[in-house]
Formats: sequence, structure tokens, C-alpha cells
Amino acid sequence: MGSGDLAGKKIAILAAGGVEQVELVQPRDAVRAAGAETVLLSVQGGVKDGRIQAMNSDIEPADTFAVDALVGDVSVDDFHALILPGGVVNPDKLRQDKDAVAFVRSFVTSGKPVGAICHAPWTLIEAGVVEGRTLTSWPSIRTDLRNAGATVVDEETVTDDGLVTSRNPDDLPAFCARIIEEFAEGRHKR
Amino acid sequence: MGSGDLAGKKIAILAAGGVEQVELVQPRDAVRAAGAETVLLSVQGGVKDGRIQAMNSDIEPADTFAVDALVGDVSVDDFHALILPGGVVNPDKLRQDKDAVAFVRSFVTSGKPVGAICHAPWTLIEAGVVEGRTLTSWPSIRTDLRNAGATVVDEETVTDDGLVTSRNPDDLPAFCARIIEEFAEGRHKR
Repeated sequence: MGSGDLAGKKIAILAAGGVEQVELVQPRDAVRAAGAETVLLSVQGGVKDGRIQAMNSDIEPADTFAVDALVGDVSVDDFHALILPGGVVNPDKLRQDKDAVAFVRSFVTSGKPVGAICHAPWTLIEAGVVEGRTLTSWPSIRTDLRNAGATVVDEETVTDDGLVTSRNPDDLPAFCARIIEEFAEGRHKR
Repeated sequence: MGSGDLAGKKIAILAAGGVEQVELVQPRDAVRAAGAETVLLSVQGGVKDGRIQAMNSDIEPADTFAVDALVGDVSVDDFHALILPGGVVNPDKLRQDKDAVAFVRSFVTSGKPVGAICHAPWTLIEAGVVEGRTLTSWPSIRTDLRNAGATVVDEETVTDDGLVTSRNPDDLPAFCARIIEEFAEGRHKR
């Protein structure tokens, strides 16, 4: 098996209604193609008939996706890694849900690898885990990240001790390659 | 004329695509009913065929609204007061536009009255004008407001030296009444 092989790994994807579709689908398909199983987690407020509404370019409704479990019903111990897709409305909903915020906080502090793209680091702010970390994001949330104590850089992908971040959908090829590497490596010690 | 009379006042409404429709329409109609003229300003990136797309509950496309001018083509001197509606995507777009951010900064520092509801205070963060101010907002952005130096309270309307804020669409009746009072009073000295 190569270093990119995720066979036997279980990956959580946490998203709510308003998720940017391409940022949900491409990382999901990439880690699946590397052999991982994925589980789509969401929050009570963001689910309708067991599905979440994805968007294109933030305001055009795209497809809906079946949610596998509510984040409040699972444990960090059930997963090897976490993907946080972007979309403006998605993290806005996640950060209002205490279970989602607690799950993200536990995941990051556990040292297990996490990939967050675009607006997803807003949820990391709410979880209180960006202070002293170096990351990137969509431009609009960089002031909020700096005010929360992060060092923000403008790069395609940034990896800080298992926390992988990217800026936008154009970064997806690099983001997907990087999370597969980090997810294959497994838990990081801080 | 009563204290709520806005006859002769010109009010700017600054919004981008993704604005929450009810938070655009109700304050606009309220100040018009009090005698004011309103001008809908937007940013290059948020306008399609001269119109912006409004939403219901953040992810359901509602009506479109004709933009009167780009914010980069007007001056704070042209207006007596400013309304910033909410919607998640709207301030996310505004804070990425340097003209919008500069306009909002100039407006607040000029002491002219400003009403901001729901997610709108995100733009105030980018403008660097919330430090030391007391305000309210939609719950999701309160951590960002506190990290930017604001004091955040959970009240229907908060007025701090001409800066009126409210939390959500349910607060609209109180928000509209309060902005009319403040807009009638005019410029505040800090």
C-alpha cells in the first residue's frame, strides 16, 4: 500500500444546508477513491427529510445529499479524520450547533487530521481551536481568523500539525491530495 | 412634523446578492413611509443585469431588486443615514469589496446614524468600527464580534450613539421603529 492509501479509514464529513456542493463532493470522492469509507454528518437544524441542500456559488440551490448521522449521535472515536467543506451558509449553521462545535473541538484537540476549505474555518473559530495555528481560508473570513488568534497566509494549501486548509474550489485538487497524505499519516501529536 | 418624520432625508441601503429579503424590504418600506427617499447600493461582484438576488431563510432564492448605484460611485456626503440588511451571503460579499468596507467605515465614523440587522455587523467588523461598541446580532457572528472588541448583548434592539442593531427578522418591527427615531435625530457626536 502507498502512503496515500486510506483503506480501512473511516472519514467524517460534517456539513449543513448551504454547503458548497463541489467542496463536499470532490474531497468525498477523492478519499473514497483512496479506499476510505465516508460518513456525512449534519446538525438538526440543517436537515430536511434526512437530506441537506447543497449550493453552487453560495446562492444557487444544487443537489441534496442524504445525511448518515447527526453529529450529536456520534463520537470522535468513531473516525480517523474529518473533512469540513465550505459554502457561506454551511459553517454559519454549524457554529450555532453546540454538538457540531464540540465535535470539531474534540477532533482538532485529539490530534486526528482535519481538512477545512473555504469558509469552513469559521467553525474552527467557534470551536476555539485556531489560536496560534497557521492556516488559510476564503478571503472574507480572514479578519475573523486573525482576531481569533490565527496566522493567516494566502496559499493553495496550508498544513499545520494535521490541520489542512485551502482557500476556494480552485484549490480542490491540491486540497484533496494533501488531505489524503495527512489522513494516511494519522494522528499528530501537538 | 413628529420626531419620526424623515421627510427630506436620503437613506442608503447597502446590500449584495444573498441579502435576506424581508430585512431589505421592511426597513426600506418603513423609512419610505416616514417620508425618506431610499437608494439601493451594491458592489460590482454582487450585481447581475443591474439587480441583486434576495433570499428567504438564507438558501431559498426570492425576488431580485434593481440596484440604484454601485457603492464606489457615491459618497457618504450624499446620505443622511445607512441601513445594512442581513442574510448570510450578503455581508460575506460586502466585506470582500474595498469600496463597501470604506463606505461603511466612513459612515460610522462620521457619526451619521446606521441600522444593521442580523448578519450585517460582519461588515462592521471588516470596517474596523465595532471595538468598544455595544451591539447585538444573529447568534452565529457573536464570537467574531467579541473577538473584534465589541460588547455583544442579546436584546431586540440596541442603540449605541446612532448605531442601531437587531438580531433577526422577528425584531424587524422594533428595528424599524428605532431606526426611524435615530435617523430623524441625525448625526451623533462621539
